[in-house]
Amino acid sequence: MAVKVVEVNESVYAANDHLAEEIRGQLKAQKTFLCNVMASPGAGKSSVLLRTISLLRERYAIGVMEADIDATVDAEKMARAGVQTIQIHTGGECAMNASMTKQGLDRFPTKDLDLVFLENIGNLVCPAEEDTGASMNLEILSVPEGDDKPLKYPLMFEVVQAVLINKIDTKDYFDFDDEKVTERIHALNPEAKIFFVSAKTGEGFDAWVKWLSEQADAWNR
Amino acid sequence: MAVKVVEVNESVYAANDHLAEEIRGQLKAQKTFLCNVMASPGAGKSSVLLRTISLLRERYAIGVMEADIDATVDAEKMARAGVQTIQIHTGGECAMNASMTKQGLDRFPTKDLDLVFLENIGNLVCPAEEDTGASMNLEILSVPEGDDKPLKYPLMFEVVQAVLINKIDTKDYFDFDDEKVTERIHALNPEAKIFFVSAKTGEGFDAWVKWLSEQADAWNR
Repeated sequence: MAVKVVEVNESVYAANDHLAEEIRGQLKAQKTFLCNVMASPGAGKSSVLLRTISLLRERYAIGVMEADIDATVDAEKMARAGVQTIQIHTGGECAMNASMTKQGLDRFPTKDLDLVFLENIGNLVCPAEEDTGASMNLEILSVPEGDDKPLKYPLMFEVVQAVLINKIDTKDYFDFDDEKVTERIHALNPEAKIFFVSAKTGEGFDAWVKWLSEQADAWNR
Repeated sequence: MAVKVVEVNESVYAANDHLAEEIRGQLKAQKTFLCNVMASPGAGKSSVLLRTISLLRERYAIGVMEADIDATVDAEKMARAGVQTIQIHTGGECAMNASMTKQGLDRFPTKDLDLVFLENIGNLVCPAEEDTGASMNLEILSVPEGDDKPLKYPLMFEVVQAVLINKIDTKDYFDFDDEKVTERIHALNPEAKIFFVSAKTGEGFDAWVKWLSEQADAWNR
């Protein structure tokens, strides 16, 4: 008997990829740089964004799309800091996809924004599998999580343009090997930029913010 | 500034409850207690398991099922510690489901084991949505992740019988409020047992291991 094979994922992902390309085209045309921020729960996505925004808000009109299963704590943090924020509830879905990004962008005055951060669901698996239509993908890995994460969640480190290693102020209390993590990331993704930072103390932010501005300026040219 | 909320709901959950119940019946009949261990990446699942096993291995025949996307680092750690281990590769899936658990159990001499730990994929979303057929669900939350995680990933804290708050040895370096996290967990799940532990120093393990033994003994009676 012939084996029937249904490639569900392929078609779903193909449709998503098509919409993602459309979104990127639209963003490029309107000169909005969309940075998709991915990380484990508690890696410090919100704290990194708040500090990054505080360093760039004089220069760019900035907005944040907060994706959560069903919460608003991060969006409220952003709003309290005076950042234009929209909350997206994924209704149990473990990651943003292009369709959700589009629904978010449609309800947000992105035409007037130069730089938008999409704070994705805290998860190292699903978000790596879905193209959101962003201009760039960023992964934040925190020191307490350990330097072995590229071995366990390789796709995440393959789909990003940059990795921030956050919470470096806690390095005395955790076994975390900078060289090993760099090697492991570059084995998966030789082009990935790696920045060692602390959202708490601000260490390392100058280099990260300079690089990010260059990417945004190149996109919005 | 007001927060705009977009409800994007397109979640479809696989209904595998029936198979999960079958697995539980089989485990109960053969007197094997299966503990499903869930957590964020880097919360310390493997370290907690290694210490728990070292305290219980004289008393129980113990095995570990390691679920990973496509890695074997944790399984190798367990095997080096002399623990019976089977590696399950989920092939990109972000959580174990009942069918995967069954495939694991079928290839593992669980009949001769009293206590089996299933180390689920590091993720606070998907594993909470899938019944694996385990006798109990455990969530490990680590101090560096923050005390707000029950607000952001409520389902995870609703489906567990116990929460271990791990890495309490690092509490001087993070803002983590024991009372707040306890309140937030109990608001979602008033019956949940909460233990504050450090897999590094061993603090808090006596109470956790005593409670776990009672659960296993009651199941295997």
